[in-house]
Amino acid sequence: MNDKKNILEIFPNPKKGRDYLITHIAPEFTSVCPKTGQPDFATISVEYIPDSFCVELKSLKFYYNAYRNDGIYFEGVTNKILDDLVAVCKPKYMRVTADFNVRGGITSVIEAEYKKSNKKK
Amino acid sequence: MNDKKNILEIFPNPKKGRDYLITHIAPEFTSVCPKTGQPDFATISVEYIPDSFCVELKSLKFYYNAYRNDGIYFEGVTNKILDDLVAVCKPKYMRVTADFNVRGGITSVIEAEYKKSNKKK
Amino acid sequence: MNDKKNILEIFPNPKKGRDYLITHIAPEFTSVCPKTGQPDFATISVEYIPDSFCVELKSLKFYYNAYRNDGIYFEGVTNKILDDLVAVCKPKYMRVTADFNVRGGITSVIEAEYKKSNKKK
Amino acid sequence: MNDKKNILEIFPNPKKGRDYLITHIAPEFTSVCPKTGQPDFATISVEYIPDSFCVELKSLKFYYNAYRNDGIYFEGVTNKILDDLVAVCKPKYMRVTADFNVRGGITSVIEAEYKKSNKKK
Amino acid sequence: MNDKKNILEIFPNPKKGRDYLITHIAPEFTSVCPKTGQPDFATISVEYIPDSFCVELKSLKFYYNAYRNDGIYFEGVTNKILDDLVAVCKPKYMRVTADFNVRGGITSVIEAEYKKSNKKK
Amino acid sequence: MNDKKNILEIFPNPKKGRDYLITHIAPEFTSVCPKTGQPDFATISVEYIPDSFCVELKSLKFYYNAYRNDGIYFEGVTNKILDDLVAVCKPKYMRVTADFNVRGGITSVIEAEYKKSNKKK
Amino acid sequence: MNDKKNILEIFPNPKKGRDYLITHIAPEFTSVCPKTGQPDFATISVEYIPDSFCVELKSLKFYYNAYRNDGIYFEGVTNKILDDLVAVCKPKYMRVTADFNVRGGITSVIEAEYKKSNKKK
Amino acid sequence: MNDKKNILEIFPNPKKGRDYLITHIAPEFTSVCPKTGQPDFATISVEYIPDSFCVELKSLKFYYNAYRNDGIYFEGVTNKILDDLVAVCKPKYMRVTADFNVRGGITSVIEAEYKKSNKKK
Amino acid sequence: MNDKKNILEIFPNPKKGRDYLITHIAPEFTSVCPKTGQPDFATISVEYIPDSFCVELKSLKFYYNAYRNDGIYFEGVTNKILDDLVAVCKPKYMRVTADFNVRGGITSVIEAEYKKSNKKK
Amino acid sequence: MNDKKNILEIFPNPKKGRDYLITHIAPEFTSVCPKTGQPDFATISVEYIPDSFCVELKSLKFYYNAYRNDGIYFEGVTNKILDDLVAVCKPKYMRVTADFNVRGGITSVIEAEYKKSNKKK
Repeated sequence: MNDKKNILEIFPNPKKGRDYLITHIAPEFTSVCPKTGQPDFATISVEYIPDSFCVELKSLKFYYNAYRNDGIYFEGVTNKILDDLVAVCKPKYMRVTADFNVRGGITSVIEAEYKKSNKKK
Repeated sequence: MNDKKNILEIFPNPKKGRDYLITHIAPEFTSVCPKTGQPDFATISVEYIPDSFCVELKSLKFYYNAYRNDGIYFEGVTNKILDDLVAVCKPKYMRVTADFNVRGGITSVIEAEYKKSNKKK
Repeated sequence: MNDKKNILEIFPNPKKGRDYLITHIAPEFTSVCPKTGQPDFATISVEYIPDSFCVELKSLKFYYNAYRNDGIYFEGVTNKILDDLVAVCKPKYMRVTADFNVRGGITSVIEAEYKKSNKKK
Repeated sequence: MNDKKNILEIFPNPKKGRDYLITHIAPEFTSVCPKTGQPDFATISVEYIPDSFCVELKSLKFYYNAYRNDGIYFEGVTNKILDDLVAVCKPKYMRVTADFNVRGGITSVIEAEYKKSNKKK
Repeated sequence: MNDKKNILEIFPNPKKGRDYLITHIAPEFTSVCPKTGQPDFATISVEYIPDSFCVELKSLKFYYNAYRNDGIYFEGVTNKILDDLVAVCKPKYMRVTADFNVRGGITSVIEAEYKKSNKKK
Repeated sequence: MNDKKNILEIFPNPKKGRDYLITHIAPEFTSVCPKTGQPDFATISVEYIPDSFCVELKSLKFYYNAYRNDGIYFEGVTNKILDDLVAVCKPKYMRVTADFNVRGGITSVIEAEYKKSNKKK
Repeated sequence: MNDKKNILEIFPNPKKGRDYLITHIAPEFTSVCPKTGQPDFATISVEYIPDSFCVELKSLKFYYNAYRNDGIYFEGVTNKILDDLVAVCKPKYMRVTADFNVRGGITSVIEAEYKKSNKKK
Repeated sequence: MNDKKNILEIFPNPKKGRDYLITHIAPEFTSVCPKTGQPDFATISVEYIPDSFCVELKSLKFYYNAYRNDGIYFEGVTNKILDDLVAVCKPKYMRVTADFNVRGGITSVIEAEYKKSNKKK
Repeated sequence: MNDKKNILEIFPNPKKGRDYLITHIAPEFTSVCPKTGQPDFATISVEYIPDSFCVELKSLKFYYNAYRNDGIYFEGVTNKILDDLVAVCKPKYMRVTADFNVRGGITSVIEAEYKKSNKKK
Repeated sequence: MNDKKNILEIFPNPKKGRDYLITHIAPEFTSVCPKTGQPDFATISVEYIPDSFCVELKSLKFYYNAYRNDGIYFEGVTNKILDDLVAVCKPKYMRVTADFNVRGGITSVIEAEYKKSNKKK
């Protein structure tokens, strides 16, 4: 599961001097519950302010597809997606929100955020 | 009613160093009005920033189910759920929102919040 | 479970000569799964054309509440509600629709109908 | 309560030769429960094919307002409105639908219809 | 008000041999109440099966605009629009639906239909 | 009209040490226009942080019902409800929002707020 | 067009000591495009904190109706309504939002605000 | 792929003498495009009138899950689900509707129906 | 414009013996107004019962894209799409519905249908 | 592609002394993917506080239409629209939000902002 982030591709930010917000919303994310082996479904939203690079959209889709048969918990998958995307495209700011379908009558949302530490605003 | 919180189970926070938000929304909560004996229905939302532990989802469902035949007021049940969850999973922050179905033509929402006192932000 | 229908009360149809349609929609029905002991939730709709009697609304609510801790399957509860209501208020026509909340990622709706056999329209 | 229908005014159908449908939807109807004295609220819809007369809209509003402090049941009020409107404007066809706000967790809809008996279509 | 229909323009039906349905929905119709002088607002929908001609869309807009300062009743304006459109484009079938904004707490919808009498379907 | 607030009942706040928010939304408020005698309809929302007391829900419903035949303006009724509730349950904070149904094509919302003056936050 | 503001009437604020918010939403505003002569349609919302006076609702409706046949641009009409209302009722705060219907595939919203200059918050 | 239907389980119809309708809606169906290997997502609805047997809900969920890594076309999967369910539970009537997520800007719905040939209604 | 239908591809119906319904909804259709040269936008829905062939989805997308810079009227484009699809995939039944975005304040929908003449149902 | 901004026209701000917000929302933007040649669709929203000039609405529409057959990336087109509009109408503040339709199961939103540097707030 470790080398999944190699799927992600980047391209140079077309407007490097300006802080602007990019959002990609993927409502077709699916993985597998590590306990029961049953499928989980979620909408994954990534919001970020690029620095030198942007995430290439098609590679992001393939990256998400790679979780299809992985067993991983809600809290874990959300933090891993954030870690992988930050490692690859080194944004100024990034937030990942995972909105999971109802399980046992309960809907869950996990939301994790990254801010470049040497950012002086 | 006191030992209901023993139903709740926890597991170690998979990303302890990062402040992130977990939300669980349960639209099938039901208890009983202590005055009339008639059932009440609510959607209970819990939002929290974990410290060392996360609430296990299935145990949360069983915890809610344990109120099914309890007589308890709107204001009371909301504060008790917050107290129990804070006692068990010791979060950095937690908010419980209980949105009760219409009774006598009036819809009620109760919202209570906890912040770890020694939190230095 | 057999004598639950005794809870139902009726009153004389205030406009007996006219065929008209009465609908009662109850979104707070809950019973228990006979296999797992976990609660089920449904919206129960009753549509009927009264003959000599109408169902009294408050007794209908108490009748539904009486299922709260009963273990009964989706297909069974829908047909039993129809049988009980037909036995008590003897309508010209009645349809019961039970719309159950998602279980295992699947939403279920059961719909059963009764028509008075000697009805000459 | 008997002379309430005298409030209703009519005017000649501007297109008598053509069968066309007029609908008036009034979401602000309120009366009083004869048992408890508590207010009931409903949306009353009237659909009709006029013959020689149309219902004057302002008088219809005053007619509805006249129920404000009357104690009357759901099934009764719906049939009375239909009877009064048929008596005053003698339509070819009329349907009255009363959609009552939730009481005791149950929403009710009553729907009654009138067809001119000597109608040859 | 009589010569308003001269505003309407037509063009030849591009597929004369086939019965197909054209719908134009205009949510910005406004006229004036003949009693009070206050403005009325409606959404006018025209559905028709063309015979030899179609209504030109821009002329339909100008035709509707011509009612802007006319005093005319709900039932009257609906039937007049139907009469004018039938006279000009001689369709096989046409229905006009006028959905008027709330007045005195009551919403009104008027719906009138035309069928070519010598139509053999 | 002055002694209407005597209808309101209170009960001790079950969690006095914690600041939490209670909201009661009543979509069935109705009073009468003092000029025209015609009924007005509104949704009244009360949000408050209790101090020593909570408003009892059933008494709040009866309090609202007591306006049913009172002639009172939009701006006046909103401020009076806030004054009465503050006088009776002495909250730390309270906001009343009255959302009135359309009159003359215009919807109106009145929103008034109270903050305990000796509050040290 | 200059003396249109004379239509507006005011009445004394019934709760002068309290800062509270009044909102009037009018979805039936219409004026005429000064270039093309074609009608424009908008929803006009006015939010304000009254000082000594409130705007009388019926006069506000007549004031809006007075634009019906005026040729005026989106940006102009919004600022003029704000100027007129501020001149007449001298509020502590006022915001006018005009939400115009789609023209040429584009929807426009204009939002202008006034704050009493000697306000010390 | 052939023996997938062995996953399906049945139980005896609890009300065999009555024709009633059962609907199961599964919004989390996913399979794989046989051409591109990319995942497809659909909502599968099954409506049926049982004869001697009903489909067991949990086995239906496992049956759907079994398509997770199968390459199969929209038109094919819909007809296969219908064939399998008819073979196993031999209903009087069954309809399968598969509503597929947008692909290349186009949403697709496939709907197939089965009626018992010797049905005498 | 004539040879646009050559873009369409077909494949053999995977369940030829059964009458079932296929629907493709394309919300991103755009062409150009032949009068003004301005772009038009529509949602095109195709519903059909296949006989020996199904329309290949990707080729349908390219076929729609080919209209991007064509000048063609609402009524014309709808009938041409139906004619082309019928010519290529020879279905038992087909309906094309084109729902055009608002132009001049008016939304238009065109709906055309084809039925195989020698169909014996 | 460089001289596309010459299409944009401006007119003098009718209320120069006041800071107010203008929003234009265009749901019919379309361009072409530079990689695949396939069309992209977006809703473009422009919010700005004018200084001396406003953007003329019709020219904005023609400016958007000029992208119809251009190959340009999501991130690029959003920043270019902002640059062009800032260059031409020199606003105090401007924000461009581009909400792109789903591609490969992922929806994207790009949001870029401009603030006049010598603004002293």
